[in-house]
Amino acid sequence: MSARIDGASPAGEAAPGHDEAWFAARANPGIRGLKAYDPGHDLVAFRRRFGEGTLVELGSNENPYGPSADARAAILDQLHALHRYPDPLGGDLKRALAAVHGVAVERLMLGNGSHELLMQLAQVFAGPGQEVVFPRHGFAVFALATQAAGATMRVAAPLPRDAAMPLGHDLEAVLAAITPATRLVYLANPNNPTGTWFGRQALAGFLARVPGEVIVVVDEAYAEMADAPDYASALDMLDAHPNVVVTRTFSKAYGLAGLRVGYLVAAPGLVAVMERLRESFNVNGPALAACEAALGDTAHLRWACERNAEQRASLAAALQARGLEVFPSQTNFLLVGFGRDAAQFEAALAGRGVVLRPMGGYGLPDCLRISVGNADENRRLLAVLDEVLA
Amino acid sequence: MSARIDGASPAGEAAPGHDEAWFAARANPGIRGLKAYDPGHDLVAFRRRFGEGTLVELGSNENPYGPSADARAAILDQLHALHRYPDPLGGDLKRALAAVHGVAVERLMLGNGSHELLMQLAQVFAGPGQEVVFPRHGFAVFALATQAAGATMRVAAPLPRDAAMPLGHDLEAVLAAITPATRLVYLANPNNPTGTWFGRQALAGFLARVPGEVIVVVDEAYAEMADAPDYASALDMLDAHPNVVVTRTFSKAYGLAGLRVGYLVAAPGLVAVMERLRESFNVNGPALAACEAALGDTAHLRWACERNAEQRASLAAALQARGLEVFPSQTNFLLVGFGRDAAQFEAALAGRGVVLRPMGGYGLPDCLRISVGNADENRRLLAVLDEVLA
Repeated sequence: MSARIDGASPAGEAAPGHDEAWFAARANPGIRGLKAYDPGHDLVAFRRRFGEGTLVELGSNENPYGPSADARAAILDQLHALHRYPDPLGGDLKRALAAVHGVAVERLMLGNGSHELLMQLAQVFAGPGQEVVFPRHGFAVFALATQAAGATMRVAAPLPRDAAMPLGHDLEAVLAAITPATRLVYLANPNNPTGTWFGRQALAGFLARVPGEVIVVVDEAYAEMADAPDYASALDMLDAHPNVVVTRTFSKAYGLAGLRVGYLVAAPGLVAVMERLRESFNVNGPALAACEAALGDTAHLRWACERNAEQRASLAAALQARGLEVFPSQTNFLLVGFGRDAAQFEAALAGRGVVLRPMGGYGLPDCLRISVGNADENRRLLAVLDEVLA
Repeated sequence: MSARIDGASPAGEAAPGHDEAWFAARANPGIRGLKAYDPGHDLVAFRRRFGEGTLVELGSNENPYGPSADARAAILDQLHALHRYPDPLGGDLKRALAAVHGVAVERLMLGNGSHELLMQLAQVFAGPGQEVVFPRHGFAVFALATQAAGATMRVAAPLPRDAAMPLGHDLEAVLAAITPATRLVYLANPNNPTGTWFGRQALAGFLARVPGEVIVVVDEAYAEMADAPDYASALDMLDAHPNVVVTRTFSKAYGLAGLRVGYLVAAPGLVAVMERLRESFNVNGPALAACEAALGDTAHLRWACERNAEQRASLAAALQARGLEVFPSQTNFLLVGFGRDAAQFEAALAGRGVVLRPMGGYGLPDCLRISVGNADENRRLLAVLDEVLA
């Protein structure tokens, strides 16, 4: 923690420069190194400029099929109770999740998006002088969570770009980065922004070699969309490895990104410690009801994931036919290499109402991340892309 | 931070006891001292037992008049877009708030309830070896935020119970508790759970004497309901005191506790540093729209606050007529002294479907906190109370 600044101003007298630097100097070391989130394009302004129906929004890996109609109905059922605090226990949703995953309710914790849970895992279990390991090109929140906790980042090199799983997590490199100071490991399977994944054998072999006192967080935000035969969720390995935490979300396959609900599954003891920090009403009331309803509509979930798989395959083929590099994906997006700095393409597409995600911040300036839209969105994307590439 | 535990288990082998104590030993010191939130009664189970229309819920200081109808309509307007992430900038709501308060947008930050903001203020600005000052019987989150940050609590004694403002914040005692290690001061005006407040002169005099490098957080969750002539918001004093932060909420006067939206107003530099830690989508999409709509319906806000003031006065008189001690209140609840341990009364009322808030956790075991309901709820409360007191 920072030493107190000398030369304190006289009582009550406003120092001349209470600017960001002044406050940052008084912040904890982890915060001093953080940068505020860069939202990129102002999507609200874009929607106003292009019209909501004209803009092609493929920058945020949202589910173009939307949620189950049951989720919308559940929100309507809650409109009379907006003045009530949400259930601080999240009991109904946790019981529904426990049934779906075949786990005890005590293994579950709800978050304001899995983002909140990923941040709090580091806040609880890592700090100054301790290390957190995650792979390069892993989910951006891993670095944020580590920095905010004031812990040291140990970034493992990814698989090479010409590997069978290009830029995927190299679990051997992750193992090699673990030291006696390591408290947490973050992985994502499938991973954002690469779309890559690792299989059951790789995961089981990795967990068998991680020291039992290192907590391994596997973010599975896109798990419901994965259909590769070798893909395996870490949920099956929780009994054998009580140091493993799985995070999931309603933002992707369930089509409820607007509601901010994620959850984790872990050992009851880990949940009990994390619950100490959880804000009592961290999940919105209508959101609790909508997620419970969405969970019950397995037909919609399956239908949306099947449409996504179809569109993912046809979009990947169409992009490859245009000479672009398409990374393998088990998600609802494709990482696409343009062979040179992609910023000009991104800007030209955005100017024509097609929003994609630049990858400079992820150290992949020649790539863009393209969410898999529905058939109509993908057609419009390809039409505009052809203009821009021409 | 805790030293690494020796005798690490062999790689991959599950230690026999990965229980709460095992994980707590690996948690940061601040977390080790925290207790998980005690939700008290399981209100969802209560509603099922008594029926939603029969239960009298006066334990959580909710607004019985509900939100503006415009807020519900705004949620309906968002049901087609649940698959979209919320606006990470919160731009529309922040612009609306800026207009209402006459401040620059750069002075505003949105939170997942003011709870999140109060927690993050300590997470950013306080840590081990540093001190946070707040008054005894202040809002419970002040202690949680301090402990979670690993900082040291310095609790100032309140005004005496026989003072004109019984158990209210003693700002002289707060000043006396400030040391060179103090980073933050938390106050609430009006305060929960006492209902008490302090006036403009007291606040101005206090701020004039607090060292300029100590950040003073004034939680004004109930400000819209305060109608005492001497009540003053700290919003008016931000220009003179850039070390002041005001937190507000949509959970109380706006009747939107289910949506989890709070905000803070402070120096732009402080907001910029806090924004570094904010999770990019911390406020739910429908909630952003509903709060913006609610903000525009000033007639509803005024109407609900007037009904609350009427009912507060009549409920206070009715409770005093029953020989109970009623503390002065500028909020939508009353702190009520029963002259002996109130746990038996609370339990008897709950058994008859009237939910109040016990105060043992606040160090006031002879008191209950009673939310001011609407006329019908208050009648039913008094009828059941008469049974229990008899």
